Amino acid sequence: MPSEVTDVRMKGFARRASVDEAVDLIRQRVVSLPAERCSWSSLADRVLAESLSSPVDLPAFPRSAMDGYAVRSPAQPGQDYTIIGEAFPGRPFAGEVSPGQAVRIMTGAPIPTGADCVVPVEQTECSPTTVRLKETFPSGKNCIRVGEDVSAGQQLLPAGRRLRPQDLGLLAAVGLADVAVVRRPRVALYITGEELLPPGSIPSGYSIVDCNSPMLMALIARDGGDVRDLRRVPDQPDELRRAIRESDADLFLITGGTSVGSQDYAPMIIAELGELPIHGIALRPAAPTGIGFLPENRPVFLLPGNPVSCLCAYDLFAARAIRQLGGRDPDWPYPRHTGILAEDILSASGRVDYIRVIETAGKLYPIRAGASNLSSTVLATGFLLVPAERDRLLKDESLTWFAYDLHAFQGKD
Amino acid sequence: MPSEVTDVRMKGFARRASVDEAVDLIRQRVVSLPAERCSWSSLADRVLAESLSSPVDLPAFPRSAMDGYAVRSPAQPGQDYTIIGEAFPGRPFAGEVSPGQAVRIMTGAPIPTGADCVVPVEQTECSPTTVRLKETFPSGKNCIRVGEDVSAGQQLLPAGRRLRPQDLGLLAAVGLADVAVVRRPRVALYITGEELLPPGSIPSGYSIVDCNSPMLMALIARDGGDVRDLRRVPDQPDELRRAIRESDADLFLITGGTSVGSQDYAPMIIAELGELPIHGIALRPAAPTGIGFLPENRPVFLLPGNPVSCLCAYDLFAARAIRQLGGRDPDWPYPRHTGILAEDILSASGRVDYIRVIETAGKLYPIRAGASNLSSTVLATGFLLVPAERDRLLKDESLTWFAYDLHAFQGKD
Repeated sequence: MPSEVTDVRMKGFARRASVDEAVDLIRQRVVSLPAERCSWSSLADRVLAESLSSPVDLPAFPRSAMDGYAVRSPAQPGQDYTIIGEAFPGRPFAGEVSPGQAVRIMTGAPIPTGADCVVPVEQTECSPTTVRLKETFPSGKNCIRVGEDVSAGQQLLPAGRRLRPQDLGLLAAVGLADVAVVRRPRVALYITGEELLPPGSIPSGYSIVDCNSPMLMALIARDGGDVRDLRRVPDQPDELRRAIRESDADLFLITGGTSVGSQDYAPMIIAELGELPIHGIALRPAAPTGIGFLPENRPVFLLPGNPVSCLCAYDLFAARAIRQLGGRDPDWPYPRHTGILAEDILSASGRVDYIRVIETAGKLYPIRAGASNLSSTVLATGFLLVPAERDRLLKDESLTWFAYDLHAFQGKD
Repeated sequence: MPSEVTDVRMKGFARRASVDEAVDLIRQRVVSLPAERCSWSSLADRVLAESLSSPVDLPAFPRSAMDGYAVRSPAQPGQDYTIIGEAFPGRPFAGEVSPGQAVRIMTGAPIPTGADCVVPVEQTECSPTTVRLKETFPSGKNCIRVGEDVSAGQQLLPAGRRLRPQDLGLLAAVGLADVAVVRRPRVALYITGEELLPPGSIPSGYSIVDCNSPMLMALIARDGGDVRDLRRVPDQPDELRRAIRESDADLFLITGGTSVGSQDYAPMIIAELGELPIHGIALRPAAPTGIGFLPENRPVFLLPGNPVSCLCAYDLFAARAIRQLGGRDPDWPYPRHTGILAEDILSASGRVDYIRVIETAGKLYPIRAGASNLSSTVLATGFLLVPAERDRLLKDESLTWFAYDLHAFQGKD
């Protein structure tokens, strides 16, 4: 159902959606992509699309947990055991162990027939042909029984699991060589703005360098997306129409040309090709954000060209959708902390403000800089949000804030 | 200075180093790798090897912060301004603005000569040829001045910075197209054990599937390492010698054959080719761990073949070294939490115990399973360490534990 096409150019937004409405729209409309099968070497950090059970017992045979000597219990100190052979991993001892006999055994080697406990090498005194124990060892000691790790048929991992490194090990161990995981979202990233030089250029004259695509590429990778179609789209409506029609992307990001300027045609094109239920959000500094859907329910985000606004709109909305498409937790990856506000922050009731902050010794200092000021997000420790229902935050309030660094403040004292 | 070569095979470790000694050795001996230059598209999450200053002012010309009309101040309501032209990003208005005149201007467009403030489109009433303001606008309003974001010569980022997505944007914006970052550690991963089938195989008979390499590959990638030399090394000393001599790796991981079994020759080879200051650590379940250095101060870690021990030894020691080589924070990436122990845990004084735990509603349930039981690390929420000076932890103690999932418990309420 295409929304009514309203030309807002040089008129201003008719109505701004709330941040909550925008988040709810994404929550309701964006679902996990279908599964694909992947082999072990590309499973790290992927999201399982199926519940997995073990096809085998692990271990499949009784194994030694130690380097030492396999004997038959009761294994008593003081007695000399005659060494009759050796057992290695993958190369079992072929004979049978009788009372008073011992087989030298390595960690992981099959327990020889007739033996039922393993005496660690540190607990023995040896001659070349005999071994004497220092302690008593009961039946089963240092033997790993069949299925002790995993039994055949046992559930290993639930659908929706974001695979850990050890999960990959376990899947390999039971012989699950390829498994179904949620397909990574294919993201089309269209950069508009004829004044923009490609990243890697030197800025000159009235041309500026596109700083949004390097930032967005890194963010999309963080969120599990796969940028398959990065292009600069000239400021002509037909070029954007063609790019969208040719793309097989699951989600589209279009930067610049999203507001109410006379050349901002992207909103109309999205409304024409699909629907644009949200255009304009009660959010500072990312008010000129649009959220729509192209046929086959493919989300499209119109991101402001100003880099701080672009970062804010990406993180609040587009990033959620990418994670949700990929079956990941839609919530922010940013570590959450609590701090004390060092100064009042003025906002406006009904609007969410995205405030960059510098944290020092538990105090939060807001950075007052415009939406084009990308260096502020480089300088900032993180950010906080002023809720829509507040028109100011007060000095000395204790507030939740989010650290830009995903890796800091985690394993520290 | 090669350490004395002691053959510990089938004798047991002469002396076990403490976990703290091992960590101190890594801290003292492992230093950041040299820098390499990288272009913008491969800088995400890399560590800067140089301090960077801006070569340019950003912006380089005064720009509009809004879509609207550029006029000369004082800009007063009620007066009709004659629209004399348009200014777009990259396409400035060529003439000069006099009092009573206005230029339609888009966000990011150069401020025309003679104008010094921008009236947002929402604050105007327009006819095709004139515009009337609704409010007073002072000089400079909605104009971004030269160097407002970054001034030429200003420091942008310090050496050692782990680059954020927005950092990549800022570097692109100022035209720093390639920068010096710490080289990613090249890791050689040698898997020993003739009983092992390669990952992707189906376990059969007395052969088991190598589960350590999928796990370690994912862990090494997490820690910024680059596995350049993954191979299965046959259980012959010369094969391991040759692999080491042929490799250009910065760091070596050797799994299996690290303990005191009769075929465990890896420790002697490391001692022979370089030094092995640590072999045997007072740590459960990763006692048979070795830490050495090959010529040119290249760290080598002998990791136990049992997968839980392998994970433990990797995370406590090898991972630190990889992160340190790569210029990263050596501390754990695991999110740190506090919980209440649900049961006593027995340990031994002088030994650190690595305990897998299941966290439920703030309570920590230890998993009692052997070092070969990889499924326990899949089931566990995380782990805790019993300090060397404790011989038990007590039910109802409040303890620090670490979550295996890097992504959970972060952005949540």
